[in-house]
Amino acid sequence: MNPVLVEAYRGDTVESAHRGAVAVCDADGGCVLALGDIRRPVFPRSAVKLLQALPLLASGAADALGLGDEELAVACASHNGEPAHVATVTGMLAKAGVDAGALECGAHWPYREAFQREMAARGETPSALHNNCSGKHAGFLCLACHMAGSRSPRAFASGYVRADHPVMREVSQALQDSTGWDLAKAPQGIDGCSIPTFAIPLQHLATAFARVGSGTGLSADHARAARRLRQAVARAPFMVGGTDRFDTRVMQQLGERVCCKVGAEGVYCAAFPQRGLGVALKIDDGNNARAAEVVMAALIEAYVAMDAAESRLMHALSHVRLCNWNGIEVGSLRACAPLSGKL
Amino acid sequence: MNPVLVEAYRGDTVESAHRGAVAVCDADGGCVLALGDIRRPVFPRSAVKLLQALPLLASGAADALGLGDEELAVACASHNGEPAHVATVTGMLAKAGVDAGALECGAHWPYREAFQREMAARGETPSALHNNCSGKHAGFLCLACHMAGSRSPRAFASGYVRADHPVMREVSQALQDSTGWDLAKAPQGIDGCSIPTFAIPLQHLATAFARVGSGTGLSADHARAARRLRQAVARAPFMVGGTDRFDTRVMQQLGERVCCKVGAEGVYCAAFPQRGLGVALKIDDGNNARAAEVVMAALIEAYVAMDAAESRLMHALSHVRLCNWNGIEVGSLRACAPLSGKL
Repeated sequence: MNPVLVEAYRGDTVESAHRGAVAVCDADGGCVLALGDIRRPVFPRSAVKLLQALPLLASGAADALGLGDEELAVACASHNGEPAHVATVTGMLAKAGVDAGALECGAHWPYREAFQREMAARGETPSALHNNCSGKHAGFLCLACHMAGSRSPRAFASGYVRADHPVMREVSQALQDSTGWDLAKAPQGIDGCSIPTFAIPLQHLATAFARVGSGTGLSADHARAARRLRQAVARAPFMVGGTDRFDTRVMQQLGERVCCKVGAEGVYCAAFPQRGLGVALKIDDGNNARAAEVVMAALIEAYVAMDAAESRLMHALSHVRLCNWNGIEVGSLRACAPLSGKL
Repeated sequence: MNPVLVEAYRGDTVESAHRGAVAVCDADGGCVLALGDIRRPVFPRSAVKLLQALPLLASGAADALGLGDEELAVACASHNGEPAHVATVTGMLAKAGVDAGALECGAHWPYREAFQREMAARGETPSALHNNCSGKHAGFLCLACHMAGSRSPRAFASGYVRADHPVMREVSQALQDSTGWDLAKAPQGIDGCSIPTFAIPLQHLATAFARVGSGTGLSADHARAARRLRQAVARAPFMVGGTDRFDTRVMQQLGERVCCKVGAEGVYCAAFPQRGLGVALKIDDGNNARAAEVVMAALIEAYVAMDAAESRLMHALSHVRLCNWNGIEVGSLRACAPLSGKL
């Protein structure tokens, strides 16, 4: 039974609660914090986009196509589908020699309601470019373009979301190498954007992110790739999420001290490079916005060196005031005791 | 520790799970099903709007103002803020001699994103009329108008959301009388629409809804009021929720056999009048759409007499297919064993 990690209060009463598991590990797999069952395989979903982007760098594709910080960051993103994200992805596709028709992620309205309303007011409808995963898929298409050599990039890339496509084999291999988890034996599912997703224990995911932070335990190519991707997301954090997004706010504030990424269904992964630690967590019920983010904020408070202003911001994210439609404070979200304070 | 009631599968693997508690009781408080802790007080939120509407009928206000099925149903609603809901609420306010400025619920965009986009495309912004609770508040204002007598309805109603206002005293008294729970001793909070909310055990909430279905255990005035409200929501189920809403779909299909109502934070209450039973449930993590609704569908399958077509509809709501942005089936939501089959 996993412990309660976040409580939602109404007045002075706990109204709802979120259970989950947390692993904080070093690059050798040693755990400095283990809450709940960190050995059960969980689908990491979008929390491992940085690991899935390693081949884009390691292959030489990113350098060959001249991808910059914003493009590398959006390749690791679950973005808001704001105009800047759409423009960056469009530019990447052009460098890869394809257009939005090559994206196999499907189309959806931006998750943030305000951006949906803005698009609707302009008479727009969403395309695959607005899909929160379109940057990751543009990265796959850049890799495909590089692997295609003299062949047509569009023809070579077709079906790249399938597990047996050469592009996806590279991507899955990078996930296996960095986590040290045999994906051939892992439970498998199909992700929201149609690529395969493999269930991996939190302990292995946390270890992989410790390796992303230090390079220890990665191949030399992957270590260089990880360092470049960490720099890119720290320099272009807006691309990773967007307006008002947790990952964007944290990395705008803390730069390379935290490299964090949300995944669907209450998963979060992060590297704390200064501490040589990686983090992976999963909320049992799959809640992101009011559980996984609150836990990640508490872990940053506990493990990352911050000044007073930074600490105040992070505390406001681990102890969230809840107001109703009249602006009256009605309750709060609070990270629970095992996560609070210095660990 | 409450049991797992709903599992979310990705492929063949449980990705996330929702725990909670369920009480199914008769009008005397006897339980025919008790899963998890049904004695812990929980905030019922909007699931008790029908109980909060009892004074509107029992006072004579509804008859004096000539309220019809649609108006009584919207007084029990958490509606989508669709044009039909806004029009009905506007009409009720006119009968009460006030306008939308008297509503103290606050304004919000309709929860359903499609309706937000439609409004934005028309250049509209939301008012208090679009608040999902505006019908309940219009009911409070109709009661206030009746209680005001020769005084100005607007002046008398002012501050009606406060616990000590004569209108709210009537509303809270009806909640106490029907549930048999001493609200003076109950944990108290402020609801999303600014009225007080009191924490009440699921066993007492289920008993109250059994009483709504049978009239047993209620005062004669409340028994008549409950019967009239049940008829109204069965005749005008669109008003209770709206397009694609669970409550609306269920009552459109099953009529007076089920009188159900969702509340925020994973609460659901229902009456099954043919069986003399009431239901109350709470999902620990507060999830409505993919947990509380799935559990309620399974309970309807277990307790309510249905023909084959009705059973198929309800099974599709207790075992929900999940598809990704490309329309590929990626998983499912499934009510767990203790809820499935005839009980």
